Amino acid sequence: MIKHAIEHTPVSKYIYATSRSSIIIRIRVARSNIKECKLIYWPRDIENKKFRNCLYMKCKNRDDYFDYYEIEISFPKVARYMKYYFELTSNDLETVYVSAHGINEVEPKDGYFDYLYTNENDVIKLPEWAKGQVFYHIFPERFYNGHIDKNHRKYVPWGSKPTRDNYMGGDLKGIIEKIDYIMELGVDCIFLNPIFEADFNHKYATINYFNVDPDFGTNEDLIKLVHECHKRNIKIVLDGVFNHIGVNSMQFKDVLEKQENSKYKDWFYITRFPVDISHHNYECVGAYKWMPKLRTSNPEVQKFILNVMEYWIVEAEIDGWRLDVADEVDYTLWQQAKRKLKSRFPDIILIGEVWGNASKLLQGDQLDIAMNYVFRDAVKDFFVNNIKPSEFDARLNRMLAEYHNEVNEAMYNLIDSHDTKRFLFECNDNKRIFKLAAAFQILFFGSPAIYYGDEVGMTGDNDPDCRGAMIWDEVKQDRDIYQWYRKLIRIRKDNMAVKRGGFYTIVCDDILNQYGFLRSKDNEDIYVIINRSSSKITTYVPLRNGEYFENLLNYEILNSVPLEKDDRFYNQDLLEYSRKLAIQLNEYSIKILKKRMEEFV
Amino acid sequence: MIKHAIEHTPVSKYIYATSRSSIIIRIRVARSNIKECKLIYWPRDIENKKFRNCLYMKCKNRDDYFDYYEIEISFPKVARYMKYYFELTSNDLETVYVSAHGINEVEPKDGYFDYLYTNENDVIKLPEWAKGQVFYHIFPERFYNGHIDKNHRKYVPWGSKPTRDNYMGGDLKGIIEKIDYIMELGVDCIFLNPIFEADFNHKYATINYFNVDPDFGTNEDLIKLVHECHKRNIKIVLDGVFNHIGVNSMQFKDVLEKQENSKYKDWFYITRFPVDISHHNYECVGAYKWMPKLRTSNPEVQKFILNVMEYWIVEAEIDGWRLDVADEVDYTLWQQAKRKLKSRFPDIILIGEVWGNASKLLQGDQLDIAMNYVFRDAVKDFFVNNIKPSEFDARLNRMLAEYHNEVNEAMYNLIDSHDTKRFLFECNDNKRIFKLAAAFQILFFGSPAIYYGDEVGMTGDNDPDCRGAMIWDEVKQDRDIYQWYRKLIRIRKDNMAVKRGGFYTIVCDDILNQYGFLRSKDNEDIYVIINRSSSKITTYVPLRNGEYFENLLNYEILNSVPLEKDDRFYNQDLLEYSRKLAIQLNEYSIKILKKRMEEFV
Repeated sequence: MIKHAIEHTPVSKYIYATSRSSIIIRIRVARSNIKECKLIYWPRDIENKKFRNCLYMKCKNRDDYFDYYEIEISFPKVARYMKYYFELTSNDLETVYVSAHGINEVEPKDGYFDYLYTNENDVIKLPEWAKGQVFYHIFPERFYNGHIDKNHRKYVPWGSKPTRDNYMGGDLKGIIEKIDYIMELGVDCIFLNPIFEADFNHKYATINYFNVDPDFGTNEDLIKLVHECHKRNIKIVLDGVFNHIGVNSMQFKDVLEKQENSKYKDWFYITRFPVDISHHNYECVGAYKWMPKLRTSNPEVQKFILNVMEYWIVEAEIDGWRLDVADEVDYTLWQQAKRKLKSRFPDIILIGEVWGNASKLLQGDQLDIAMNYVFRDAVKDFFVNNIKPSEFDARLNRMLAEYHNEVNEAMYNLIDSHDTKRFLFECNDNKRIFKLAAAFQILFFGSPAIYYGDEVGMTGDNDPDCRGAMIWDEVKQDRDIYQWYRKLIRIRKDNMAVKRGGFYTIVCDDILNQYGFLRSKDNEDIYVIINRSSSKITTYVPLRNGEYFENLLNYEILNSVPLEKDDRFYNQDLLEYSRKLAIQLNEYSIKILKKRMEEFV
Repeated sequence: MIKHAIEHTPVSKYIYATSRSSIIIRIRVARSNIKECKLIYWPRDIENKKFRNCLYMKCKNRDDYFDYYEIEISFPKVARYMKYYFELTSNDLETVYVSAHGINEVEPKDGYFDYLYTNENDVIKLPEWAKGQVFYHIFPERFYNGHIDKNHRKYVPWGSKPTRDNYMGGDLKGIIEKIDYIMELGVDCIFLNPIFEADFNHKYATINYFNVDPDFGTNEDLIKLVHECHKRNIKIVLDGVFNHIGVNSMQFKDVLEKQENSKYKDWFYITRFPVDISHHNYECVGAYKWMPKLRTSNPEVQKFILNVMEYWIVEAEIDGWRLDVADEVDYTLWQQAKRKLKSRFPDIILIGEVWGNASKLLQGDQLDIAMNYVFRDAVKDFFVNNIKPSEFDARLNRMLAEYHNEVNEAMYNLIDSHDTKRFLFECNDNKRIFKLAAAFQILFFGSPAIYYGDEVGMTGDNDPDCRGAMIWDEVKQDRDIYQWYRKLIRIRKDNMAVKRGGFYTIVCDDILNQYGFLRSKDNEDIYVIINRSSSKITTYVPLRNGEYFENLLNYEILNSVPLEKDDRFYNQDLLEYSRKLAIQLNEYSIKILKKRMEEFV
C-alpha cells in the first residue's frame, strides 16, 4: 500500500454537510492502489461495537497520483456526534486503519475522527437555477448599439479594429434589442461586464456605482433589461468591481482635494501624502494608476460595498454579482456578503473572478462559485497545446476533487473571456479544434459560460482584440459554428444527464489521443467520445444486453457486438457487461451517444 | 522520490501572511526523502528569468510519514502578485518541479502557483501576552471559599467527596484571597469555568449571562477579582457557554410558557410543540435536557451572544473568552466575534474548546487558539500508555504542522481538565511518571495550562472526582510536586528559549525509550532529555568547541568529550560539531540542559 498518499482531515474538503441530516465524507488514496475502502462509523455515546456501521466507499475522482473515495451518509434527524475511522485494503491485501492518530496497522481503540454537529450555515446550498445552466458573457460596449442617436464624433464604426480607447456604441438598449437572439441560443443567464458610470470603454474605473454609465444608458434601461430577461426566464448577473475604484470617483477626488483631511483617506492605501496621480503614491490594482485599490478591510468601505450590492438586487432585481479580482479583496467582506445578502436573497449567486485554485473563497462562507480559469487552462492545454489525454483527465479530476459537488455543479466553466485571447484565436483559427473544445465545454459538468461572439466564430488576440464588436451580419457570421453551439446547448438542455448528471472518465488513451466521458443521472447515460488525433480511430465501450446507442448529433443508431475475452476498458469493471460497441470517429471529431434500451413487447 | 507524499495547495495551511509584507510558504514531502527543497518565486509582471529568486527551504516538522518544509519571505512593501513553484531533489538525485499543474519532470513554463495580495485581515496576529504564557484553570465551586457566612445547609464540608450535585462553597472572593498563591506559582492567566447565574455546581446551565451566580458572589466581586489579577499582571479569561442555555433561563421559560407564540421560539431547535422538558422535544447539548441548544445561526441569538461577550470585556475588563464546545456553535458567530470584538479589543484572546483537530476554527477568521486535547492525548499515550517515542514525536509534529506558528505559540496545552481524569490518576498515582509528563507540558512549545490542584498532587477519576476541593492544607499537599511545578515554571519564565523558542526533536529512541528536544531562541539553546524507561541510560548530544551544558534543575555542569567516527545523532548534521556530551539519566527522569559557552579571557 502506498501510505504516503492517504489523506483525510476533518475539514471541509474531506467532510462536509449536504443538508442538516446528511454529510459527505471523502478520503484520498493512491491511484489504483486500493481494493476496498470502508467507512466505519457510530454514534459517539454508544460503546458497543455491534452498533458500528460499515459502508463501502466509492472512487469518485481519479487524477495522476490519487483516487478520491467518497460516500454520503444520512441521519434520521441532525447529523451529529459521530465517531469514525477508515479501513483500507490494498490490491496486495494489506489492511490499514486511518484514524485521527494517523495510519494504524491494527484496528484503533481510540483517536477516532469526530463529526460533531451540523448547524444551518454549515450546509452549502447553491440556488437550484445556477446548476448546470448556460452563461452568456457580454462586454457591453461591443455587443449592440441600440441607441441610434449617439454623438457620432465619439464613436468609430461598428466592427472597427478594437483599441483600448475607442468606442463603438454598444449599450443596454442594444442588449434588450438582442435579447431574443440570446434566448434562441439557449442562454439561461447573462453576465455583463461593468455598466456603472466609469472611465474607459471597459468601465472598470468606477466613478459612481449607483448610476448606469451614460454611454450605456440609464438606470431605467437596466431595470427594463432585467425585466425583459426575466420575462424570458433568463437571469442576469452584473460585474461588481469593488477591489478598486476610479480616480474620478467622488471618494478619490475628495482625497486629492482635501488630502489628509479627507474623510475618505482611509478608503485607500495611501503610501505618502500629498497624494498625486502622477506620483502614484497609493496602491492600485496591478500597476493601473487610474484605479486606486479600495481598502476593503475598512468597515466603512465594506458597508458602502454591501450597500451597492444590495441596492441593485432590490432596485433592478438582478440575480447576482460576478466579483472582480475577488481573491484580492478582504475576505471578511465576502463573509458578510454571504451572511447578509444571501440570507435575505437566497436565490442570488456570487461568482468570484479567480485565476487559480479558488478553494479559499468556496468553502461556503464566502462566494458560491468562481470563474473557472483552471478549467480553461486544462481545455486550452489539451485541445490547443496537445497535452496527453491522461494529463488532461488528471487536471480535470484534481480540479473536481478540490471543491464540493454542490460547487462543481454550478461552476462558471469558461474557455475565454474579455481578459484572454478568443479561444478560436488560441486554436490558430482551426475551426475543427475549436468546435471540439466548445463541445467539451458545453458537455462538461457544471455551467458552461459562452463569451459573446464565440458562437458566431469571432476570433482575436487578448485585450483589446478579444473585445471586438459583435458580428450581427449573418453573412459574416460563421453559421456552422453557430449551429454547432445551438445544437450542443439543445443537447444539454434536453438531457438531464448533461445538465446535472455526474462526470466519469471512460476513455483516456494517450496513444490514440482520444478522450471520453460519461454523463449520468438516474437512468440516463450519455457517452461523449472525442478523437483529438489527426487519424480515424475506432474505440469501444461496453454494454449490457439490449442496450444500444443513439448519436445525439445526427440520430444515427449504433449497435453492439459480443464482448471478447481480452477486452479491457478504462475505469470499468466488466462483470455486468456482455457486449461492446464499436465507435468510429473521424479525425478531430466527437460523438455524443445516448444509451437506449430495446423495448421488448 | 516518493511523489505521492508531495502536497502544496495555495490555501492557508501552506501559504499565509505573517505581516502585510511577509508570508510563510510550506510544502509537505515524504519523510527523509528530499535532499534539497527550493522555492523559486518572482513578481508576476516580470517575465525575465533573471529576476527569479531561488531560496532553500528548511524542514520544520517531521512526523512518521512526512517532512514539512517551510520558509518565510519578505517583500519591500505589501506581499503581492508573486508567482512561484518548487524544485525538489530527492536523496537519489531525482528532480521534480511542483506547480499548480501538479508534479512535473521538467521546469514548468506555465501553471505556476500565485500569491495575490495581503489584506489586513489576512494577517494572523495573536496578542503578544498570550504566547508561551502559563494558564491556570479553576473550577470555581471547588477552589476556595472566601465567603464564610454561607448557608451551611447547602454545603458539604470542604474536601468531601465531590458529587455531581454537592456544593463545597468555592467562590470569587475565595479566588481573590488566593490570588497571591496563584501569582507565586508563576501563573500568567487564569481561566475560570462558568461563573454566571446558572443551575448545577458546574454552572453550565445558564440562567442569566449578565449576573455572577449568587453562589459565587456578585458582579462587583468579579470586577474586583479582575482588578486584583491585573494588579499582579495576571490576565483572566471567562468560560463562554453559548452553545446552549439552561431551561431556567428567561428565554427558555418564555418558550415553555408561550409555546409557539414565544418570541424566543427560534432561539432553539424545537422538534415538536408543545415543548415540555419531560418530553425532551428540543435539541440539547449531548443528551442533557436541562441544557437546550441555542440556535446559534439565528442573527438575534448571535447579537445577544456578541453583546454578552462585549459586555464583560467592557464592564469587568476581562482578557478573553474560553468558548465552550466551540466546534458545535455556528461558525458565523465566531467570524463576527473575531471581526467585531477583536477589532475593538485586539488584546483579548478567544479560546475554543475542541477535542480533535481544531484547524477549522483556527484559520484566522474565527478563534485564536484551542484547548489542545490532541496534545493531552499524545502526552497521555506516551507517558501513561507507553506508545513509542517515535509515535509520540510523530503525533506532536503532525499537530504542530497542522496550525500556523502564530497559533502554536499560544496554544492552550493541557494534560487534564474538569472534563477528564486528573493526570496523576491517569498515571495510576505514579508520581515519577506524573512529574515527567508535567515537566514535558511546561517545557513544550505553546502555553501550558495547569488544572488547579495538579500542582499539589491532586488526583481523581473523571467528573465528578476530578472536580475535588482544592487542597490548601500544606500537610496534605504534595509539596514535592508543588516545588517541581514552581521550578519548571520558573525555568520557563527565565528562559526565552522555553517561553518562546522553536521546538526541535533531537532524541527519539524507541529501544531505550527516551525522547529529547531542543527549545531554541536567538542564541539560547535548551536541551530537554527524558528517560521514559525503567533503566538508567546514557544519551549523547553533539556540541561545538567551547560549549558546555548546565542542568537547570540542579545547576550541575556537564562536560563533553570529542566526537567519535561512528557517531550519529537524530536530526543533526555533524558537520559543525566536534564534541559530544554524555548525559546520564536515571529511570523515569528528565534533564533540562542549557547550553553555555566558555568565556575565553
